[in-house]
Amino acid sequence: MADELLALGQQILAAQPFSVLLGAELVSFTQGQVAMALPLKPEFGQQFGFAHGGVISFMADNALTFAGGSALGPDVLTAEYKINYVKPGRGERLIARSSVVTASSRQAICRCDIFAVREGVEYLCATALGTIAKRAGRNAENE
Amino acid sequence: MADELLALGQQILAAQPFSVLLGAELVSFTQGQVAMALPLKPEFGQQFGFAHGGVISFMADNALTFAGGSALGPDVLTAEYKINYVKPGRGERLIARSSVVTASSRQAICRCDIFAVREGVEYLCATALGTIAKRAGRNAENE
Amino acid sequence: MADELLALGQQILAAQPFSVLLGAELVSFTQGQVAMALPLKPEFGQQFGFAHGGVISFMADNALTFAGGSALGPDVLTAEYKINYVKPGRGERLIARSSVVTASSRQAICRCDIFAVREGVEYLCATALGTIAKRAGRNAENE
Amino acid sequence: MADELLALGQQILAAQPFSVLLGAELVSFTQGQVAMALPLKPEFGQQFGFAHGGVISFMADNALTFAGGSALGPDVLTAEYKINYVKPGRGERLIARSSVVTASSRQAICRCDIFAVREGVEYLCATALGTIAKRAGRNAENE
Repeated sequence: MADELLALGQQILAAQPFSVLLGAELVSFTQGQVAMALPLKPEFGQQFGFAHGGVISFMADNALTFAGGSALGPDVLTAEYKINYVKPGRGERLIARSSVVTASSRQAICRCDIFAVREGVEYLCATALGTIAKRAGRNAENE
Repeated sequence: MADELLALGQQILAAQPFSVLLGAELVSFTQGQVAMALPLKPEFGQQFGFAHGGVISFMADNALTFAGGSALGPDVLTAEYKINYVKPGRGERLIARSSVVTASSRQAICRCDIFAVREGVEYLCATALGTIAKRAGRNAENE
Repeated sequence: MADELLALGQQILAAQPFSVLLGAELVSFTQGQVAMALPLKPEFGQQFGFAHGGVISFMADNALTFAGGSALGPDVLTAEYKINYVKPGRGERLIARSSVVTASSRQAICRCDIFAVREGVEYLCATALGTIAKRAGRNAENE
Repeated sequence: MADELLALGQQILAAQPFSVLLGAELVSFTQGQVAMALPLKPEFGQQFGFAHGGVISFMADNALTFAGGSALGPDVLTAEYKINYVKPGRGERLIARSSVVTASSRQAICRCDIFAVREGVEYLCATALGTIAKRAGRNAENE
């Protein structure tokens, strides 16, 4: 059952060209919880040599959406989120851990902590809070 | 003078491997205002065929930081921001327009609207608000 | 017509016991735009003598909701918002000016700048960005 | 020691005229954690009979600042925060529980959950994330 959810999540991630381009991996995916990893590459940097904020934001956005999707089903979009950068991201990889704070049938409020792993040591890199909304209903209006 | 600022900005953008990887372009860059463009490619999508939220966030994060940098100087980092996704991003390219709401000597509060251009028609895709901080002082602590 | 909207807005504000308790006034209220004022009193302060953040947040929350309501109708609630405090609030009064960035039939994204007026001079005190949602549908679930 | 911190916190709260006006109480206050309560009164409502968003925001703002202050010392201000309203606030009282996510010597990132207690049952009403900054240095510029 947990394996099925993980397999479904990996399928969705594999269907996101941008996640494939960057190399994001779904580490774990259960009801209300997700962990996603991204091996860091030199081309993910900004001018000071750290991971670009856009890379960290990508991890936050994606992990938040997967956490929300674990509660609401696969047809979800991130409505909004806020992110606080805490420390520069560097090292071998980023890990985003997101969980559902609360969910109704139509939206989920989710938190996400993004960690960097440097020489094997994990430290908090950024933290985020956002709203994931069911896509049904948005369609007619937005597309 | 304005040309010098634009040239400096383009130099900084060219020094960001992630911005180069994605292909971001600095369209205009003046005191307190920036416009940045990103030609959309199929590999920037998510599973529904729209631009991935991480791509839109990258544009917001980057344009906010450049706007803040136009007020504070080049040695800046995004401290935090919030983004509201308004409509799915699709079409030929994204344009992020960011401006300084207010700045002190140490930080700038900046806004950013991210537009998508589809068949030549521009529409609002997302809007963001964030804090850009001078990097000096962060160094000792964070690195 | 504009007068009718202002009258309706004032009626709603008068129906909010907390707005009456603090003394908030609707200065102007048109489609997509609102200005709300709050005469500052000593009892609105925090320990440093400035207006308490909760007072400034109240103005942001309220003005955002009224702006959203001008687009969506009176049956709205603030779903979420973010606020950046820029300068301490002090002087004679606060003025919150909020406008709709974009609206669908179900929600509006609104901005709000909160100013303080001190010895007749107005300065930016805080800025906010948030989502106002139609209340219909929330009811069944939340109440 | 813990009692000393609680006593200090209560002293600070008592020095905030707005917190006194509304009747906020410091329930617990330890290094990195705070719980604050607010007995709900009819005059705290909005037009639908629930606690006004401004009241809930006041609790978030205040609890975030106290949590940040437990890490940074008493001379702090809220720089910014974001709040998601989850359910209407009603019942006997609100309780805001805030904790430090991470802190440097100059700022703390804090989370806050705001609960409502209705007929003795506690439920999540809102959740927030924000930055608390040391006031030193802000002074010269802002005042």
